[in-house]
Amino acid sequence: MTKEELMRKAISLSVRNVADGGGPFGAVVARDGEIVSTGVNRVTDEHDPTSHAEVNAIREACRKLGTFDLSGCEIYTSCEPCPMCLGAIYWARLDRMYYGNTKADAAAIGFDDAFIYREMELSPENRRLKSEECLHEEALAAFAAWSLKPDRSEY
Amino acid sequence: MTKEELMRKAISLSVRNVADGGGPFGAVVARDGEIVSTGVNRVTDEHDPTSHAEVNAIREACRKLGTFDLSGCEIYTSCEPCPMCLGAIYWARLDRMYYGNTKADAAAIGFDDAFIYREMELSPENRRLKSEECLHEEALAAFAAWSLKPDRSEY
Repeated sequence: MTKEELMRKAISLSVRNVADGGGPFGAVVARDGEIVSTGVNRVTDEHDPTSHAEVNAIREACRKLGTFDLSGCEIYTSCEPCPMCLGAIYWARLDRMYYGNTKADAAAIGFDDAFIYREMELSPENRRLKSEECLHEEALAAFAAWSLKPDRSEY
Repeated sequence: MTKEELMRKAISLSVRNVADGGGPFGAVVARDGEIVSTGVNRVTDEHDPTSHAEVNAIREACRKLGTFDLSGCEIYTSCEPCPMCLGAIYWARLDRMYYGNTKADAAAIGFDDAFIYREMELSPENRRLKSEECLHEEALAAFAAWSLKPDRSEY
């Protein structure tokens, strides 16, 4: 499939998902022009704020391929990803991203991606989300244990 | 439980998770001083790049409470969250975050959070991740359908 065909698949998923009661978002993970997995936004009916199209497509692709590393794959998303999904795309090591709508389009219909992007750039004390460091010295114990573990699975 | 006790729980989860073969990260979602859910990092053994402690604790709390909205809850995480998890915290509408280790500590033991934070701040064309807009006009169809849907579940 061409990149346009793969994007049309992501778009058609996003359109159908609105009719199915979900959010207007769809995504496809593909490798060498073949669909590996798809995902749509099911936040409200699954009661899962992480159930975004890209996260779902990535989780499904990893399940199918038996790996947490999607190097060699590309993601087609009907909308520029929110920070959560963009983070997931980096952790999944996808080679490339294609997007249809932009985050400005998403903001225009009431999705808060742009707000979260702005918050990301602030230091914790300046964010709307109240946050506080707590027991830093004790928390370092796990990192020390990790660094000393000879058989750790790095990723 | 006090905030220190809840953070110690997150830290002890992170320490035990290293011994169990996972990454050095643990998290607790709590409401009114009571634990609602816990999560640890299981990326490598679950083959899921989104299986971070905070995402898992949020998903579990939402499952238990039957909602995608964790207003009134707080998250205690053994390490300052990566962009994916911070995004999830915003989408879940948690009231407050407490963290133990910082993202600088995470970078020092080889986790790429700081790199992903830097990428977030760049426009798509300047990121390491190759990305490209595709079929923007066609993609807008789902957003138009969403905006016109009288019974949409906004969130």
